[in-house]
Amino acid sequence: MKKIDGGITAAAGFLAAGLNAGIKGTEKKDMAMVYSEVPCTAAGVFTTNVVKAAPVKWDKNVVDTAPFVQAIVVNSGVANACTGEEGYQYCVDMASQAGQALGVPTDAVLVASTGVIGRQLPMDKIKPGIQALSKALGASREDAAQAAQAIMTTDTKPKEVALEIEIDGKKAVVSGMCKGSGMIHPNMATMLCFVVTDAAISHEMLQKALSSIVVDTFNMISVDGDTSTNDSVLLLANGRAGNKRIEQEGEDYETFCEALREVMTELSKKIAGDGEGCTCLFEAKVIGAETKEQARILAKSIICSNLTKAAIFGHDANWGRILCAMGYSGASFEPEKVDIYFESKAGKLKIVENGVDTGYSEEKATEILSQEEVTAIADIKMGNEGATAWGCDLTYDYVKINGDYRS
Amino acid sequence: MKKIDGGITAAAGFLAAGLNAGIKGTEKKDMAMVYSEVPCTAAGVFTTNVVKAAPVKWDKNVVDTAPFVQAIVVNSGVANACTGEEGYQYCVDMASQAGQALGVPTDAVLVASTGVIGRQLPMDKIKPGIQALSKALGASREDAAQAAQAIMTTDTKPKEVALEIEIDGKKAVVSGMCKGSGMIHPNMATMLCFVVTDAAISHEMLQKALSSIVVDTFNMISVDGDTSTNDSVLLLANGRAGNKRIEQEGEDYETFCEALREVMTELSKKIAGDGEGCTCLFEAKVIGAETKEQARILAKSIICSNLTKAAIFGHDANWGRILCAMGYSGASFEPEKVDIYFESKAGKLKIVENGVDTGYSEEKATEILSQEEVTAIADIKMGNEGATAWGCDLTYDYVKINGDYRS
Repeated sequence: MKKIDGGITAAAGFLAAGLNAGIKGTEKKDMAMVYSEVPCTAAGVFTTNVVKAAPVKWDKNVVDTAPFVQAIVVNSGVANACTGEEGYQYCVDMASQAGQALGVPTDAVLVASTGVIGRQLPMDKIKPGIQALSKALGASREDAAQAAQAIMTTDTKPKEVALEIEIDGKKAVVSGMCKGSGMIHPNMATMLCFVVTDAAISHEMLQKALSSIVVDTFNMISVDGDTSTNDSVLLLANGRAGNKRIEQEGEDYETFCEALREVMTELSKKIAGDGEGCTCLFEAKVIGAETKEQARILAKSIICSNLTKAAIFGHDANWGRILCAMGYSGASFEPEKVDIYFESKAGKLKIVENGVDTGYSEEKATEILSQEEVTAIADIKMGNEGATAWGCDLTYDYVKINGDYRS
Repeated sequence: MKKIDGGITAAAGFLAAGLNAGIKGTEKKDMAMVYSEVPCTAAGVFTTNVVKAAPVKWDKNVVDTAPFVQAIVVNSGVANACTGEEGYQYCVDMASQAGQALGVPTDAVLVASTGVIGRQLPMDKIKPGIQALSKALGASREDAAQAAQAIMTTDTKPKEVALEIEIDGKKAVVSGMCKGSGMIHPNMATMLCFVVTDAAISHEMLQKALSSIVVDTFNMISVDGDTSTNDSVLLLANGRAGNKRIEQEGEDYETFCEALREVMTELSKKIAGDGEGCTCLFEAKVIGAETKEQARILAKSIICSNLTKAAIFGHDANWGRILCAMGYSGASFEPEKVDIYFESKAGKLKIVENGVDTGYSEEKATEILSQEEVTAIADIKMGNEGATAWGCDLTYDYVKINGDYRS
C-alpha cells in the first residue's frame, strides 16, 4: 500500500471537474462532477437523521436499485434539505440533466448537496453549471483538485487522499475527497465524502466494506455534535484495474478493505482537523477496554465534550473534564483505575494514575497541548480492546462562523 | 400559591450563612451552610455520571439511610471529584466537623462541593470556615443571600426562589437556591440545588415528589451538554408549618408538588439563563407530540445543538438547524408536518409550515431573537402532549471562560 499524490481522478477511468456556477454569489467554486468512463458498482452510507435532504433520499434508492452508477453531481451553497416536494423534484432534475449531458441513464447519476438548509436550489444556475461541468471533465491532478475545492463550504482546505495497492497482481487505486466542516457528528455516515476505485468489486462486497469501515472512521469524528441532514459517503468501483472481480471475502477483499480503511481514516482526520474555527486536531484514544464498542463510546464522548474542547483550545491539561466526559458517556468503567496521558510531537506525559492527579508538570503539559495535533490517551485497564476518535478544539471562531451569518 | 421575596431562609426554622473561607484565593465567598432548628426529612437526586464526586457518594448514603438530616455544608472552588480515598475522607471530615459545631450527628449533615475537578480540598481553610459558618447562621433575607452567593462559581448572579402555599389550612413555604453555570447537562439530577420547606412530609413522599419533578425541570436544561460529576438536588422538610404530615398522595401532596415544581422550574430557568458566557435564555417548546417523552427528547435536542445555540447568539432565524437537531434526537416524527415559531416579548412569528419556509420577514425574526428570553416552538402535529427545555446561546465568552483558565 503506497500513498500517492492524487485526488478523486487518481483511480483509472475517473474524470472530474469543479467550477463556479454562481450558486454562492461569490467567486468560490460551487459545483463539481465525478464521472467514470465505464459503469461502476456503487455503495453508500447516509445520515440517520430523520430529516433527510432530497439527494440523500435519491441516492439511497439509486445505490440500492440501479443496475450501475456512472456519475456524481454535487453542489455547495444550498443543502436542498427541508425543501419539500419542490426540492426533491430539483434533485431529480439535477440527475436527469447530468445524465443527458453525459449520455447515461438518470438513475446512474448520484446527487449531493451541501450548504444552507431550507432554501431552494437556484435551478437557473444549476442547469448551465451541469452543462459546463460535463464539458470540463478531465483526469488530471488539477481537475481533481478543482472538484475538491468546489464541494467546500466553511472548510479552509480541500481534502483529498489517494492510495495505490496491488490486488490479484494488478495495480489498483483507491482515492477520495470529502468536505466538512460544521454540523459534523456523523451517525452511520458522514458529511459529503466521495471515494472511487478502479478495482473490480461487486456491489455487495463494496457495500459490506464501506458499512463496516465507516464505524471506525467517519462515525468516530465530531466537530460539534450536530448530525447533518446531508451526510453521505459514496463509493464507486469501475473495475479498470483489471483484477479478478472481488465477489467474496478473502485476501483480495482484505487488501481492498485495508486501503479503503486508510483512505477513510485519513479523510476523517482531515475533516476533524479542519472543523469550523478549530486550531488543532484533537484525538482521543481509549485503550485497555473490555470491548471495542465500550472503547468507541468513551473515545467519542471525550472528543464531543464542549468543556474538554474549550480546554484544548486553551492548552489547559484540564483532565477532570476528560474523566467527566467518560463518566457520562453511558459506558461502564471504574474511574479509580483510569490512567490518562497527553501526547503530541512535543512528548508524552502521564497526567492521571488510578483516577488521581500524578502531580505532573503543568508547563510540560501546556507545551504538549500547544501542537497542531494532540492526543489524549485513557487506559481503563479492563481488557485489550481500543478505539480512536477525532475531534477538534472549540474556539471563538466556531461561534463567530455560526453566529455571524447563515452558513 | 404566592411568590415571596426570599431565599433559602424563607421557610420557617431554616438558618443560613455564607462567607469567604479563602478556598478560591479571591475576595469571593466560597462556603455556605444551611441549618434547620429541628430535624428534617430529606430527599435527593444525584448525577448519573459514573464519575461521582465524594460528596455525591456521601449524600446518597445519608439520604437513603440516616434517620434525619439537619444541615448542609457547601464549598465552591474545588469539586472534590476524582480525588480518591483522600478526597472522600475530607468529605466525611466536613460532615463531622459541621456536626460537632452544630451539635448534630455526622450523618445528619449533607455535604456539597463545586469547582475544579481533581484537586484536593484545602482542609486548613475548610475547618475554620465551618466554625465561622456555624456562628454566623441567621434567618434573615441577607443571610440567605450570602449563602446563595457563596455557592457560585462562574455564575454571574445568585439564584433564589421562595413560594408561599397553604397546606391543610396552614401557611407553608418552599424555598431554594442553586448554582450553575458550566458543565450543565443534568441527567436525573442537576448542579447544586438546595430546596427547603417547612411543610411536614414523610421521607418517602418527599423523595417521590423530587424524583418526579426533576424530570421536567432540572433534567430539561443544558448549558453545554456536559453532565457534571457533582450534580445534586437536596430537599429538606422540617415540618414547622404545622400541617398534618403528608404521608400519601392526595390534595395536600398535590399542593406541595405544585409549589415544588414551580420553585424547581424557576431555579432551572435561572441556571439556563445564566449559563456560562450566555446572553439569553433559550427556551424550546415542543407541542402536538404523541407522548411526553417524545416531546422531552425533541425539546432537549434543540437546546443542546451547538449550531442552533450559535445561531441564537447571532439573532439568526436559522430554523434548518432546529429541524436538523430534532431529526437526530432519536425521537420519531414527520419533518413534512412540522411548524416552527419564534416567540419573545417582541412578538411571535411562524417561520416554518409543514416542514418548509413560510417566507417570513427576516427583520421581524431578528427583532424577536434579540431579546433576553427567546422561545422556539415546534408543533409536530401528532397528538396533544408537550414539553419545554431551557438552554442558552453559545458565545465567545463560553469559549473564553472555559479556554482561558481552569474553571
